[in-house]
Amino acid sequence: MRGHGQGRGTVGELGEFGLIRELTSRLTTTPAVRVGPGDDAAVLSAPDRRVVASTDVLIEGRHFRRDWSTAYDVGRKSAAQNLADIAAMGAVPTALLLGLVVPADLLVTWPAELMDGLRDECQVAGAAVVGGDVVRGDAITLAITALGDMQGHEPVTRAGARPGDVVAVTGWLGWSAAGHAVLARGFRSPRAFVEAHRRPEPPYQAGPAAAGLGATSMTDVSDGLLADLGHVAEAGKVRIDIRTAALDVPGQMADIGKAVGVDPLQWVLTGGEDHAIVATFPPHVKLPARWRVVGEVQAPSAAAQVTVDGEPWRGAAGWDHFGG
Amino acid sequence: MRGHGQGRGTVGELGEFGLIRELTSRLTTTPAVRVGPGDDAAVLSAPDRRVVASTDVLIEGRHFRRDWSTAYDVGRKSAAQNLADIAAMGAVPTALLLGLVVPADLLVTWPAELMDGLRDECQVAGAAVVGGDVVRGDAITLAITALGDMQGHEPVTRAGARPGDVVAVTGWLGWSAAGHAVLARGFRSPRAFVEAHRRPEPPYQAGPAAAGLGATSMTDVSDGLLADLGHVAEAGKVRIDIRTAALDVPGQMADIGKAVGVDPLQWVLTGGEDHAIVATFPPHVKLPARWRVVGEVQAPSAAAQVTVDGEPWRGAAGWDHFGG
Repeated sequence: MRGHGQGRGTVGELGEFGLIRELTSRLTTTPAVRVGPGDDAAVLSAPDRRVVASTDVLIEGRHFRRDWSTAYDVGRKSAAQNLADIAAMGAVPTALLLGLVVPADLLVTWPAELMDGLRDECQVAGAAVVGGDVVRGDAITLAITALGDMQGHEPVTRAGARPGDVVAVTGWLGWSAAGHAVLARGFRSPRAFVEAHRRPEPPYQAGPAAAGLGATSMTDVSDGLLADLGHVAEAGKVRIDIRTAALDVPGQMADIGKAVGVDPLQWVLTGGEDHAIVATFPPHVKLPARWRVVGEVQAPSAAAQVTVDGEPWRGAAGWDHFGG
Repeated sequence: MRGHGQGRGTVGELGEFGLIRELTSRLTTTPAVRVGPGDDAAVLSAPDRRVVASTDVLIEGRHFRRDWSTAYDVGRKSAAQNLADIAAMGAVPTALLLGLVVPADLLVTWPAELMDGLRDECQVAGAAVVGGDVVRGDAITLAITALGDMQGHEPVTRAGARPGDVVAVTGWLGWSAAGHAVLARGFRSPRAFVEAHRRPEPPYQAGPAAAGLGATSMTDVSDGLLADLGHVAEAGKVRIDIRTAALDVPGQMADIGKAVGVDPLQWVLTGGEDHAIVATFPPHVKLPARWRVVGEVQAPSAAAQVTVDGEPWRGAAGWDHFGG
């Protein structure tokens, strides 16, 4: 019989404490971690005297599929989603906590590789997994809480956009949605888009950098550019216009669009899971090369709060997680 | 038709954003909350420059039953469980984040009253609900993350107990377990024990106070006194002996024990959900009246790490959440 340390067998066979040992044995730490996993709570440095916190829940079948993504990629992606929320406040991610629901008959390799993915994505962002809880249940469910430090910046909320500000994006737009369209039709390529769907690459450093550059509002693109800018427009009581000519639609994305009969602009404007960062800046701010100006903030009007080339967008703007 | 603001209808009818509005409208805040719910992340004061964080997951049927507890009580209890973890590090609770899974056909009143319970328990502890996420799923699931501030104290971990230290408890032991035994047999009284099961009262202030008194180790009693002291003994590489004569078995608890054929000591020693706090202190420390010395820390030996009146306890010491 092989040792459980190899991750053999089911989580039911391994038991709660065995599983926790297996999962925590995979973790790495950072200097910010004062007390790591295994006690009543973790203790972390918060040098700025302000801590940033965000929680997301992901359920198998709804937010990820085991036949489309490895456990490792689910870990990378779900960590990325939360760490991007921290960056989008202008903060530096420091830690992640995991609440995990697993069926008893799940092989230990799955949560073990999930944890590897969470750990590695944390390392990309400069953070560490510091704690969590594992319970038995029918549906694999991840509840992830990310923490961060403001490092002297003021939090950049969704409110604060002013007429005349430019709207700028950094990161990827529509790549995950295009990859999803490929996978949904049973294909595995083009690889770059499938990979983008499986493992987004949020521009973590751009969040604190934008705060330092004087961003007036900021959010991560999780529900789609138009939907998330809708929150910015609503919170700031402004109108936002996006110029499609300024958006980047890569040739290969256009090819996928042709192949599956979808306007790729739909992916760029309404695809969410790349976790790009969108922010508004005063017009005089000189933006680093990785930011792309895609629109401008206008005075509020009776028309739609977010427009595309001056008109309301006729596609589906984001989605309601409870609808459909 | 009544407004959704009254919490009528199902969560599916209300939709994700409507439900989030309904839930956040019930919240209160504290001066520590810099950015509350509704943005990418919350921002909180962390005056000590160290933040304490803990996550727990609770699933319907496994951790609570809707026919035994109201949504409000589930909120009170699940918040209490997490906030107690913060106090048991010696910290003052500051905030709570909620990851919530709800079936589409659940009446909105249920999560709304859950939120009221979370809010009120947070207020007892001096904290506030600052954020979260709501998704649709089959089983009601709560993932709760609590945060806290060390306020100048050093974190009191499970390690650190030294031979010669006294073991002291504050809060309630066995009340929730006795209440559970009553409910499991279809009764609703004695009320005090049923209430204790539905709504524990952790001694939040005792955690930071114990840190100030020089506690050498501390934990909250969530799996049972013997099981949780087992973690303390293991982490500190010591043996711990509990004296049953020092434990408080109220007359009414003894009566319930007689009625249901259970030794009430079993509840006091292995019942967890009251979230008492147990700590070890150097023998010279003068403990406040609400602490009860129940045992002592001894040098390690080949015998069981936690003993009761010098002998291994023959009952079931705690439980494995994946077993059975």
